[in-house]
Amino acid sequence: MKIKKVLVIGAGRSTSSLINYLLEKSEMHKLSVVIADVSLNMAQEKLNGHKNGTAIEFDVFDDNQRDAEIKKSDIVISMLPARFHVQVAKDCIKYKKHMVTASYISEEMKALDEEAKSNGVIIMNEVGVDPGIDHMSAKRVIDRIEDEGGKMLLFESFTGGLISPDYDDNLWNYKFTWNPRNVVVAGQGGAAKFIQEGKYKYIPYNKLFRRTEFIEIPGHGKFEAYANRDSLAYRDAYGLSDIPTLFRGTFRRVGFSRAWNLLIELGLTDDSYIMEGSKNMSYRDFINSFLPYHPYNTVEIKLRHYLKIDQDDIVWDKLQCLNLFSTDKIVGIKDATPAQILQKILMDKWSLKPDDKDMIIMYHKFGYEVDGKRKQIEAYIAVYGDDSVETAMAKTVGLPTAISALKILNGEITTSGIHIPTAKEFYNPILDELEEYGISFTEIESEYDGYNPDRTLA
Amino acid sequence: MKIKKVLVIGAGRSTSSLINYLLEKSEMHKLSVVIADVSLNMAQEKLNGHKNGTAIEFDVFDDNQRDAEIKKSDIVISMLPARFHVQVAKDCIKYKKHMVTASYISEEMKALDEEAKSNGVIIMNEVGVDPGIDHMSAKRVIDRIEDEGGKMLLFESFTGGLISPDYDDNLWNYKFTWNPRNVVVAGQGGAAKFIQEGKYKYIPYNKLFRRTEFIEIPGHGKFEAYANRDSLAYRDAYGLSDIPTLFRGTFRRVGFSRAWNLLIELGLTDDSYIMEGSKNMSYRDFINSFLPYHPYNTVEIKLRHYLKIDQDDIVWDKLQCLNLFSTDKIVGIKDATPAQILQKILMDKWSLKPDDKDMIIMYHKFGYEVDGKRKQIEAYIAVYGDDSVETAMAKTVGLPTAISALKILNGEITTSGIHIPTAKEFYNPILDELEEYGISFTEIESEYDGYNPDRTLA
Repeated sequence: MKIKKVLVIGAGRSTSSLINYLLEKSEMHKLSVVIADVSLNMAQEKLNGHKNGTAIEFDVFDDNQRDAEIKKSDIVISMLPARFHVQVAKDCIKYKKHMVTASYISEEMKALDEEAKSNGVIIMNEVGVDPGIDHMSAKRVIDRIEDEGGKMLLFESFTGGLISPDYDDNLWNYKFTWNPRNVVVAGQGGAAKFIQEGKYKYIPYNKLFRRTEFIEIPGHGKFEAYANRDSLAYRDAYGLSDIPTLFRGTFRRVGFSRAWNLLIELGLTDDSYIMEGSKNMSYRDFINSFLPYHPYNTVEIKLRHYLKIDQDDIVWDKLQCLNLFSTDKIVGIKDATPAQILQKILMDKWSLKPDDKDMIIMYHKFGYEVDGKRKQIEAYIAVYGDDSVETAMAKTVGLPTAISALKILNGEITTSGIHIPTAKEFYNPILDELEEYGISFTEIESEYDGYNPDRTLA
Repeated sequence: MKIKKVLVIGAGRSTSSLINYLLEKSEMHKLSVVIADVSLNMAQEKLNGHKNGTAIEFDVFDDNQRDAEIKKSDIVISMLPARFHVQVAKDCIKYKKHMVTASYISEEMKALDEEAKSNGVIIMNEVGVDPGIDHMSAKRVIDRIEDEGGKMLLFESFTGGLISPDYDDNLWNYKFTWNPRNVVVAGQGGAAKFIQEGKYKYIPYNKLFRRTEFIEIPGHGKFEAYANRDSLAYRDAYGLSDIPTLFRGTFRRVGFSRAWNLLIELGLTDDSYIMEGSKNMSYRDFINSFLPYHPYNTVEIKLRHYLKIDQDDIVWDKLQCLNLFSTDKIVGIKDATPAQILQKILMDKWSLKPDDKDMIIMYHKFGYEVDGKRKQIEAYIAVYGDDSVETAMAKTVGLPTAISALKILNGEITTSGIHIPTAKEFYNPILDELEEYGISFTEIESEYDGYNPDRTLA
């Protein structure tokens, strides 16, 4: 059996589970794993001296090196930021190498489909957690319903990356388990768009965190969800062009959004302009910039009055615990936007501590009609981190990515082209193996309660 | 005495006063006025058969025609949309002709300064009402204060184009007296920025219409003002680099902004995306797109609950009187943004009727210290329209534009270069002549009450 070379480009924080999976499987599957990162140190740390791997210093902008390493490999896993994938994909197609990424597919990437097909190359995208496990788990249920003659009425889907309850020690019940910047600017850049009972609905940014819905997940408690930007894109991806209700959202613990909306109302999440004198500004100065001048009133009372916060309202404590009113804490960033300053303030409080564990929670609701009856299926998983390296995020992003790479190498996935894992050929083997790692959906079937008017009136 | 040729490019609604002024002065000052518009009809209507003028069909994109007409003229007044001015200015410099516009000066226009100077050409910009009369009237008082040894502490300035009270027949106390689109998207594209008592202040769009201030103007009633985008630009323009308080705003009648903010909260002013199926949507469908689905609740009750509007609150009547809940009124615009649809809805109700008269109100407040005493000057004008042609807007935009053109032709204004009328050479003769047309500021001097803490506590 010939040794198969796997090139992993990018060995950042979220790649431990991915790399560990490949190294663990390397003996049985005759893999040689090349871990390539701009930091050799980072690559070596992830390799941890395993005999079936090599760590190399790698510069994706170095055309010669990129060419040489891709040419030597059988498959390439790109864990780089999404904007770098297309160049890697072009090289992979040129040298007839397969490729896997966990990122959203770009239009440029899609455009390579014909070329990939004619070169017999498989390029699998969106095979992490969200996007990734969401696609696979949802599409498996949708296909099952439709294979049994059902007609889809409703699809709602929610994912959240959160702090595990045992390590939840702040009033916001939130810590950064993923890119903090994405959390700070979440929801900006256009209205959230979805469809409910055949009606298009739009939520502007200033209302996004005030139109959350609550979902109770057995054994894991109550969550609230705000709408994702464009739920409608999933109609095509999932073959649900006629579905009357389609909604995707992001989970937070209950109460987060009402407090977060206060930060939005103040203007702290704006990333579009630079604040004068940001470097030497205290956190208190920062907040005061968004409040009217007054010769006597404190920043605290001005803010409470402006945002109409009762003094015994818990949101007030949420704001206070971020040190927003500190005169000692200094921003220290030159020419910073409000969003950059807010991110810094939040990272003081919301960064994971070394022993903290995160969690990923995902929930789907499928409404459908079959044999004249309206039914629903709810499906959910909660994945908890093992430690600060094997986080829930690293596992749920890395395992499906690694599994799909191995399935491609082993010939279990064979259809060439630019893909996302929404076809049975893709999701069945990947989801089956994920179950061995405890990533297994619980399903609850019941009568459809989507928009039942009787229930609403009760 | 040689006949002087004035080329007026653009003969739209706001140019009547401008053209009438030039025609009235044509005999005494030996002017020949060429009125050039893309619509010959419009140009002829404005000329009204006057013997000292010609109406021509004119296409600003036709290089030959533009060249030929500019070459024949002594001065060019461009009343085109602002984006066309730079091309006209380049031709004017080439042929050594002076030019006047009422529009904001662009960076591209500023860059022509050296060239204009070396060709001895005067290009006067921002010489309408706002910008224009605001610059001239404010700078005249500021220069007077500084000439008398005073030090500026505060400058606040407000302008509003409104419906004259006698013709005010809707609950919003507002009609479109200028470009409706600018009203619908006002305040978008970044936080409003100003300085109060040495502190930079920022107001995000979602709070812009909730942080208005009230100004009572003797004889004209009470107004409310929301902050303009960038007040700080006026520090350089007015030579106020160290002023601790500088604020510019736009007037509405009291109560407008609280209701307008509801339209913003709903998301109706968003111009960044196209709504699905806009063409066949009723006004009610449009509103419902921004509200959650419910099987029974009406659009009205959903909206009242969403925006927390008491049933006896006047803002509710303001919304209702716009026909927002009509099932009969159809949007009728394909691929429209929310802002475009809102503009259509408002134009049904807020367009000027043939007999309506508008008004322009402008108010400045100057705080300063002289001889150890803190003082203030308030200065204001209210200009009312004569009829639906000689509107307040047409008069206050057109007269200073025309007057400055004549002063340039007559050699009363002589300094070449790209200007705005903030120097004495410019504002003194123009303001003096404006007084003959009843555009004369009333001044009130008093003790400084800027941010007087004793008064605040009283």
